[in-house]
This record gives sequence, C-alpha cells and structure tokens, in this order.
Amino acid sequence: MKYKRSERLVFITEYLTRRPNARVPLSTFVDKFTQAKSSISEDLRILKEVFENENIGKIVTTHGANGGVTFIPKIDYHTAVEIVKEFEEEISQSNRLLPGGYLYLSDIVGNASLMTKLADLVVTLYEDKHIDAVVTIATKGIPMAHAVATKLNVPVAVIRKDNKITEGSTVSVNYVSGSTRKIETMILAKRTLKQGSRVLVIDDFLRAGGSINGVISLMEEFEATVVGVTVLAESKDNSGKRRYKEYTSIVKVSEIDEFNETFTVEPGNCLDNFKKG
Amino acid sequence: MKYKRSERLVFITEYLTRRPNARVPLSTFVDKFTQAKSSISEDLRILKEVFENENIGKIVTTHGANGGVTFIPKIDYHTAVEIVKEFEEEISQSNRLLPGGYLYLSDIVGNASLMTKLADLVVTLYEDKHIDAVVTIATKGIPMAHAVATKLNVPVAVIRKDNKITEGSTVSVNYVSGSTRKIETMILAKRTLKQGSRVLVIDDFLRAGGSINGVISLMEEFEATVVGVTVLAESKDNSGKRRYKEYTSIVKVSEIDEFNETFTVEPGNCLDNFKKG
Repeated sequence: MKYKRSERLVFITEYLTRRPNARVPLSTFVDKFTQAKSSISEDLRILKEVFENENIGKIVTTHGANGGVTFIPKIDYHTAVEIVKEFEEEISQSNRLLPGGYLYLSDIVGNASLMTKLADLVVTLYEDKHIDAVVTIATKGIPMAHAVATKLNVPVAVIRKDNKITEGSTVSVNYVSGSTRKIETMILAKRTLKQGSRVLVIDDFLRAGGSINGVISLMEEFEATVVGVTVLAESKDNSGKRRYKEYTSIVKVSEIDEFNETFTVEPGNCLDNFKKG
Repeated sequence: MKYKRSERLVFITEYLTRRPNARVPLSTFVDKFTQAKSSISEDLRILKEVFENENIGKIVTTHGANGGVTFIPKIDYHTAVEIVKEFEEEISQSNRLLPGGYLYLSDIVGNASLMTKLADLVVTLYEDKHIDAVVTIATKGIPMAHAVATKLNVPVAVIRKDNKITEGSTVSVNYVSGSTRKIETMILAKRTLKQGSRVLVIDDFLRAGGSINGVISLMEEFEATVVGVTVLAESKDNSGKRRYKEYTSIVKVSEIDEFNETFTVEPGNCLDNFKKG
C-alpha cells in the first residue's frame, strides 16, 4: 500500500491508540508501508509532538534492532479537573438518594463513555507504577475496572461475595462489613490472578472501608502488592474509621440528609496527585 | 494552534476514534485549527479513505450549517475470522473444564483487550440496527457488554439475580432455569433502562436458554424491543431446546467429556452474518 505521510499518520494513530500500553515493533509500520525506518521514525516524531501538545498521551520509542513504540495515555491537570467536574454534576442529582442513605450509582457505572473518561484520569495517576492487574469487587466496580485495564493493557480479576461453580478453585477470606458489622466472605478464583502481582484495586463506593480491608487480606493470600486503591466516590464522614488510608477518590460525598433528600458532593483527592500546570 | 495537514490528521483521528458513534460538529475542527471548512473536509476525506481501505470503520459526514462527522467502527470478514480464531484458541485450553461440565471463563472475560476486539465484531453485526442500550446479566456478561456499549455509544443496564438496596425501585420476573429446572428471579433497576428502548442483550454462555427467556420477559416489562442476543459461547447440544432462536454466538462448544477432560470448540454463527469478500 503506497501511502503519503498524512495517510500513514492516520493509520499509525489509530493503530497505536487502539493498543494503549502495548509495545508495537517498528517493523509493523516499516513492513506495512515499505518505507525506510527513518521515514517511520519521522512519522512517529510528528505523532509524539501532537500527542504531547494536545495532552493525549506519551509516545515512547525504543531504538535498536528490536525497536518499538508504545502509546501511554496521559491527561493533564486541566482535563482531569473537567472530568471530575462532569462526574460531580452527574452524581449530584438529588434523586440519587435511596433509603438508608445509599446512593443510586447504577446509571453512572452503566455510562460507558463516562467510565472511559474516568479511566484516563486513573491511568495517568498510575502511569509509572508497573501495574500487572486490576482487581475489583462484583458488580458495580467491574465497568470502571475494565475501562482502566483496557488502557493499562492488563487483565481484570473480579472478587465475588458468593461462590460459584464456574469459578473453579478459589481462595476466600472473611471480613467484617464496615457498615453492618457482620462477618462476610469474599472469594477470588485462583487462576484469575498470578501470585505476586502488583495490583490496582478499583471499587465504586468507599464507606467505612470494610470491603477494602477484605480485599487487602485476600491480596495477601495471592502475595500481591496493592499499589493503589481507587474509588468513584467516598463518603467523607467515615474517613476517620478506615484502616487502609492510601486510596484515591474521584469525588467525596457528605452531609447525607435522608429526610430532606440532600447531600453534598465535592472533588475527591484524585486531583492532589496531579502535576498542576 | 497552527498545524499542518499531517498534524491535523493525527488529532482528528484520535478525537474521532475516541468517540465512536458520536456526532462531532465540523466546527470543532474548524474552530480549533482556524481553517476553512473546505480544508477540514479534505482532511476528513483522507481519513475516510484510509479507514475504508484498512477496514477500521466508516466516517460519515453530514453537510449544511449543522454539519458533523461520525466514526462508526466496522471490521471486515477477514478480520472477524481472525478474531474468532483467537478466541477459539483461548477457549480451547483443556484445563477450562470444571466439575459438572462447566467451562472456566473468568480469565477470558477478564481479558480487556480480547473483549475490545470481540466488541468490534459485535458492533459490526449491529451497526445499522439503532441500538439504544446494551443489557446484560451479572456478572460475567458485564465486561463484553461494556466493551460493546463503549463502541455503540450507549448505556449498559445490568440485570441481577439478587436484589440490592442500592438498585432503588426494581422490576423483577421469575423464570425457569434451563439447566436446573428451578424457579429463579432476575431484577433490573427501573431507571437503568428507558421504556421502549431497542436493546442488544449480551451474555457469556448460552446453555438451555433459561436466562435468555428470563431476560426477554423482563424486557417486555420495559416495553423494550430485543434487537439481538449475543453470547461469547453456546453449548451446541442444547440448541434444540431453546425457545429464543435469534442469537449470535462467537463460538460453539460441544462434546463435553468430563471424564476425559475434553471438549470441542468451533466458530459460532457470528460469521454467517458477515458480508464476505
């Protein structure tokens, strides 16, 4: 296929952005376009410049016989602020309040394009942390976990609270639910997570932190390192009670007043770790 | 920002492929690049040509004062065959067989990049079917449902088999499980799915079809039109017993022999509906 530079750039942009965090051999493009390596390198230089100017991400090239190129999604502080604001507005709708002071989140986690945007924010925070797998708890954490894992190019392991025959051999731990103080069980299929993985834990809502304590115990059974915990929302009032303190939240929810059906939403701590500018 | 054509094309390619099935106003690019509409139209013509040549998808432009451009992912028969083959190889590993003749699929549905590839195949099949929402059953259907919904730019509604307070008001139906013949219940939060939606149902494994019958009854309660049902795998032996016949499967699994730990995998019917060529 004889392509001009502009046409090659369309192809290369689509090819790399479809494969975030995957190393693509330079020979893929050299062979496809029957172009000299130097021409392809010049294509990649243009791509790199636009991606950096536009805060789309980094293009990392490695040289030598085994040369390759990797697209690493990465957004800037300004874009992160916009994403948090959009999410804040979604979650602030007053008709979300359910009996018991719970928030209705099913439509938010069902919003695939919002999950993709939030994933850009999360992967920027963990960009250089060498994550091997994303771990989440069924069911509301799964969409966000998958959106993040797609961009990190790693698998997702789903922890369940019920044991199913279709999970094969499992490892289970008991934990104390933070809100009800009941003993509960969580299980993970043995072969969904490699021993010794570096994991990022994703969940929808962080209340007293009982589930997260359970996840951390379970991760010990897999000799996994918990590199971080990210939640869509945390309830501010309970933050003092939590044992695990190192987490990232997109928003904080507080002053939940069931009687008047009001609550307050503010940005979580996720923006603190962004390089401003 | 003063960009050359090749640089503009990098930006436009990333912008559109990040927003599949969303109509982007032409003014987005006209304003950003301070270029005449005719230059941007020429950029889009180049993009369109490369996307068609390379079987990436369609670029649809509408003209007039309200002109816009939409990227519609669409793969060809040859790519679909490759994706089915990759999936077939994954699922064929003999150590997937669990007691009771069940297949272990958690690692497959946890493979985010595989789910994205399969989604390209599924959205090509339903490209012009005006889907309003993807409906799935917790928990193994969720990753595929989200991968498809991301590309169709529609929300996901997740049906559960247990009622949770965090779902708010729900609609429930009882159905007969195809394999155990027990009466089971499935529920869907009222506000995750708009009345009268055109839905695509996604699930992981189709056995006797009891769950799908349940989903179809539940969709009647929402006055929804079930445009299609797509499953990752179907078990061939039970196909005669199913009431709902209009489904698409990626692979068919048959001759499950628990004693010898063997089973057969072949492509499902998903390739039948592809335009060959």
